[in-house]
Amino acid sequence: MKFLDDKGYLLRNGVGERLFYEHAEGMPIVDYHCHISPREIYENRRFANITEVWLGGDHYKWRLMRANGVDERYITGDAPDREKFQKWAETLGRCVGNPVFEWSHLELKRFFGYDGVLNADTAQQVWDLTDEALSRDAFSCRELVLRSNVRVICTTDDPADSFEWHRKIAADPSFDVSVVPAMRPDAALRIERSGEFGAYVDRLARVTEVPIATFADLKRAISRRYDVAAELGCRASDHALNYVMYAPATTELIEDIFERGRAGEPLSEREVMQYKTAFMQFVAGECVRLDWAMQLHFGCRRDNNRAMFAKLGPDAGYDCISNYAPAGQLADFLNSIQETSGLPKTILYSLNPADNMVIDTVMGCFQEAPVTGKLQNGSAWWFNDSELGMRDQLTTLANEGVLGNFVGMLTDSRSFLSYPRNEYFRRVLCGLLGEWVEQGKYPDDEMLLGQLVRDISYNNAVRYFGFDLDEE
Amino acid sequence: MKFLDDKGYLLRNGVGERLFYEHAEGMPIVDYHCHISPREIYENRRFANITEVWLGGDHYKWRLMRANGVDERYITGDAPDREKFQKWAETLGRCVGNPVFEWSHLELKRFFGYDGVLNADTAQQVWDLTDEALSRDAFSCRELVLRSNVRVICTTDDPADSFEWHRKIAADPSFDVSVVPAMRPDAALRIERSGEFGAYVDRLARVTEVPIATFADLKRAISRRYDVAAELGCRASDHALNYVMYAPATTELIEDIFERGRAGEPLSEREVMQYKTAFMQFVAGECVRLDWAMQLHFGCRRDNNRAMFAKLGPDAGYDCISNYAPAGQLADFLNSIQETSGLPKTILYSLNPADNMVIDTVMGCFQEAPVTGKLQNGSAWWFNDSELGMRDQLTTLANEGVLGNFVGMLTDSRSFLSYPRNEYFRRVLCGLLGEWVEQGKYPDDEMLLGQLVRDISYNNAVRYFGFDLDEE
Amino acid sequence: MKFLDDKGYLLRNGVGERLFYEHAEGMPIVDYHCHISPREIYENRRFANITEVWLGGDHYKWRLMRANGVDERYITGDAPDREKFQKWAETLGRCVGNPVFEWSHLELKRFFGYDGVLNADTAQQVWDLTDEALSRDAFSCRELVLRSNVRVICTTDDPADSFEWHRKIAADPSFDVSVVPAMRPDAALRIERSGEFGAYVDRLARVTEVPIATFADLKRAISRRYDVAAELGCRASDHALNYVMYAPATTELIEDIFERGRAGEPLSEREVMQYKTAFMQFVAGECVRLDWAMQLHFGCRRDNNRAMFAKLGPDAGYDCISNYAPAGQLADFLNSIQETSGLPKTILYSLNPADNMVIDTVMGCFQEAPVTGKLQNGSAWWFNDSELGMRDQLTTLANEGVLGNFVGMLTDSRSFLSYPRNEYFRRVLCGLLGEWVEQGKYPDDEMLLGQLVRDISYNNAVRYFGFDLDEE
Repeated sequence: MKFLDDKGYLLRNGVGERLFYEHAEGMPIVDYHCHISPREIYENRRFANITEVWLGGDHYKWRLMRANGVDERYITGDAPDREKFQKWAETLGRCVGNPVFEWSHLELKRFFGYDGVLNADTAQQVWDLTDEALSRDAFSCRELVLRSNVRVICTTDDPADSFEWHRKIAADPSFDVSVVPAMRPDAALRIERSGEFGAYVDRLARVTEVPIATFADLKRAISRRYDVAAELGCRASDHALNYVMYAPATTELIEDIFERGRAGEPLSEREVMQYKTAFMQFVAGECVRLDWAMQLHFGCRRDNNRAMFAKLGPDAGYDCISNYAPAGQLADFLNSIQETSGLPKTILYSLNPADNMVIDTVMGCFQEAPVTGKLQNGSAWWFNDSELGMRDQLTTLANEGVLGNFVGMLTDSRSFLSYPRNEYFRRVLCGLLGEWVEQGKYPDDEMLLGQLVRDISYNNAVRYFGFDLDEE
Repeated sequence: MKFLDDKGYLLRNGVGERLFYEHAEGMPIVDYHCHISPREIYENRRFANITEVWLGGDHYKWRLMRANGVDERYITGDAPDREKFQKWAETLGRCVGNPVFEWSHLELKRFFGYDGVLNADTAQQVWDLTDEALSRDAFSCRELVLRSNVRVICTTDDPADSFEWHRKIAADPSFDVSVVPAMRPDAALRIERSGEFGAYVDRLARVTEVPIATFADLKRAISRRYDVAAELGCRASDHALNYVMYAPATTELIEDIFERGRAGEPLSEREVMQYKTAFMQFVAGECVRLDWAMQLHFGCRRDNNRAMFAKLGPDAGYDCISNYAPAGQLADFLNSIQETSGLPKTILYSLNPADNMVIDTVMGCFQEAPVTGKLQNGSAWWFNDSELGMRDQLTTLANEGVLGNFVGMLTDSRSFLSYPRNEYFRRVLCGLLGEWVEQGKYPDDEMLLGQLVRDISYNNAVRYFGFDLDEE
Repeated sequence: MKFLDDKGYLLRNGVGERLFYEHAEGMPIVDYHCHISPREIYENRRFANITEVWLGGDHYKWRLMRANGVDERYITGDAPDREKFQKWAETLGRCVGNPVFEWSHLELKRFFGYDGVLNADTAQQVWDLTDEALSRDAFSCRELVLRSNVRVICTTDDPADSFEWHRKIAADPSFDVSVVPAMRPDAALRIERSGEFGAYVDRLARVTEVPIATFADLKRAISRRYDVAAELGCRASDHALNYVMYAPATTELIEDIFERGRAGEPLSEREVMQYKTAFMQFVAGECVRLDWAMQLHFGCRRDNNRAMFAKLGPDAGYDCISNYAPAGQLADFLNSIQETSGLPKTILYSLNPADNMVIDTVMGCFQEAPVTGKLQNGSAWWFNDSELGMRDQLTTLANEGVLGNFVGMLTDSRSFLSYPRNEYFRRVLCGLLGEWVEQGKYPDDEMLLGQLVRDISYNNAVRYFGFDLDEE
């Protein structure tokens, strides 16, 4: 097969091809979790050159350059953009089998029409080509979104954020893609960060005009802010956890922990877990109240390289998989909220692929009517965002649950060029379904399979989150 | 390939096909671990309709319906059987890639001769077809067993059970399939269940007529009961453990823990583990004494949904994989019994597929003559009971040990329609062997491979458990 | 495909074949980690018969025989060599899917020209054939090394060793393969072995003529010994750890633990981990100082069968995978050395394949210029030394990092016949690359891919360790 062959890439056989071209390819995109900047959308940002687009904030690429022995000056440092691009081009060819190799070329192909291979020799050609293209209207943020057939973008926002840009986009009649906030109250969760927690609580109190003296006050303030987000179309609350913990405690103890944490006093690891359990129980209740989905991202250990953290801050490519995520605590946490607030729609994402089966089987213990697929194993994420990871997530989910109800792909991205990952995901999905048909494990019934593909590509997410869109 | 294609389904290539049709297909079944009711066999139960057979107790199917948003009334509730079946038919088509989709159709095909696809539209047709069939003699429990070429059924029995139905079956000359008990003394193990443990010990004392004041008495009572089971043909003791623990303690401490546990006093987690270690060491000795196999099922966390447990009790589809199973404690436990009672034949089953390699390599540390394959990694189980899970278990076992000595498949089922899982397993096995031959990893020597297939399908289990049957 | 088919074995398709035959096959071997005896090389040992070669010390084969129910007399006992070989031949055929089946036949084919299948019937023929061959010059240790195109052998040596044989080989002009030591100071690390640690420290003091009263003295002694090894061409320090631990402590506390450990006093588990952390931090500094690679082998639990350990000692086939290796401690350890001594080139090997993704993502947090691929996920090892394990290691590495910089295969072997494992590895690598090309995931660019293959087969290891050899 040709490299990124239009016809067969990732599709495996004729059934896969038919499913992709007749059912998946044309479906719009609901990007229900990403890190796109709403301001960049409102201001319709343009990019100076391909280095700015690709290497401005993409820590996937930074890591590969570091692994290739490239000096930091050419990665996050002050080297000229053209030189940085050269280093990236030299690195890329060594990355055989890495999804970034495929994505990068898919972006060059789909957005820039470039059909070749980027390497040290072709770098100048690609630089010139993209340089010319990026100056055109078609490469503004909004145009990239529209060209990608995106209908909804859920950004990631702190409850203390102003939502200024979401409001402005909503008020702008010239852009009719729905750009809505999603809540990410990580700063309110991280009571262990003694230098930051108190200051954050103060800031939240100011923004919400709710005086916060107690944990109960904090909850009231966040609740009020969630209401504002809901009015702006928010449909989800997202959380970064080391693991899904369950350490129950009395209301009094939680208030005591909150008071000391806010004052910057040291807390034991157990106290931190007790606070986080209580906070997450509160969030679950909010999601039930607002009919939002609760998204739990776990299995990640962040900022492992202290020296580089001091230089570059977070999200600079120094995170890794954490392999501690006890099934028992996950199940106990879900049980605890089911017994109190009731269980909201919940999407579980673990960065550790070894957790897939665990998640799939825990989910099965809490599924309940009337929501279809109330608990979800989120799409393969970050280090698993590859054919390998996607096939693993899809296959275990199919084996343990009802694949047809899966809400499908999200970009989780900061980049306006990353939408071809939806194409990638849909190809992997169709390839897998085609394989099962070829193996005699499912009838070759295009009506059934086509519906499944359209649902997983788009309709399930629309229904699950409750976006005001027609099914397709 | 056609759906469930008779010729090639799961077989991958010509070598696989030859192995299956010439060597695997005709072999009888030894179902050495299941949850079939001996009473239903003795009474030769018939089923009112397909809902009773399929949805009467099958929590695999219940989970899928719940994940499809079906109301509990149609699952375990009081909805009419025909309506429940409709909901199941609607759910099934969404379950692409799930083994239940394949098994259900395999059962329809093998037992009822139905070649179509069950869905909302065909549900009435399938209902009528099965309704008619189930009224016939050929669908009584005994006939289903005989039609499936089953030679031995090992049920799962508490030592305090009466064995009444096993005795009656044995005395009935009209049914010559061997139906023997297997011991499952979980109630005697679960000292942490303060409400139940004491009552169970009392019951065991009554049944055995052994007064039980101490742990030594308990062991004596169980020992006596194991003798009775042995006379009835029992060849195995089976145990459900969270994980294989090793927490050694003195005899005095164990007696003290037993006394307090029996009185319903609270025990620490460590004490519970100490008691369980001592109990399992005792069981190991019994297995050595009686030349039984010890079967350890672990990696499962049961009854995670408290609200539903209150309504439906255990085995209702609320269990999940536990990912805590320390290799070190497993190895230390096996070492401890080897040093005292000696090591019995032991089969290790973990619900967590990530444990396969661990089990395979721990086993290798304790294999010893004269038993061939003294320690076994049990067949892919429950959530792993799929092509994916079977291939993983078989492949890692082959890589780390001697696949030719594997004792093969069991149904672990409550249903008389589940024997086609043996066909499924044998197809997966032959497909895998065929693949290795095609890849040049093993010579295409039908004599060797055919023998392996027949052994894994039947002969190894006969030899290993010591059933009084000829090899085939 | 024919068994071990010369053309296609493991290569999957034409691209794989081309890469192997044009680029991989002819590359020399750098065996940068093995357990070959330098004395046997110097003395140019010959082997009495195939049993001595194969069953003299190969615990992989011993384990398989035990799993086949073979009496220990025929394994490590006093049975005649011909009878042992017969038992091995009978066992081998049952081991379908086991890499030892393939390796054994690959060795028979490549070294002895035997094209058949070893089994009970052919055992005499193979015995005679190998018996004749082993008496020839071509089967002396040195000739086996030369015939295998090996350029460097790094043995595994305690700092207290004399290096006598390395010196003698270096001084022998008739053998120009480089045989250099690699340091393995496990005895200095294992402070928990109260019976052995003190004696070892005494021995090290004698050898180095450094009086050792404190941990600081111990470090000085080892440092001196590392200098000697460096002069002899040593390029690596290798360590067997249960897991990569991080338990920091003050210098005073470490000195106190050392003093008590040396005196044979009992230490808590935490103290042992504190000592080991300090020891490994010291080693890391040494590796930075000498520009060596630090190799960390973990995820193994050794000597699990106490009865057999008492009879046979270590390395007798009683080891298993350990599934405890916390990502957090690994990351914290690497961070701690980066902050103090600086991070040396580091290769991480875990015996637990579930750790591959964890290792790959932790590595990514510490890669830095100017070394290309400064941190490495070591080649699939021991229980993973199979197509399954290699594909898993290569695929996850490719997905998370820069595969082109991988330092590739080592034998980790005690046997002079094990070099075909390099062929095996290279075939697996080329097969995988060919597969990706066939799937449209990488361009079919022989220049790029051929370079990658040659680099991973040989050049990367030469560069990484800094051997004085030309690239090929």
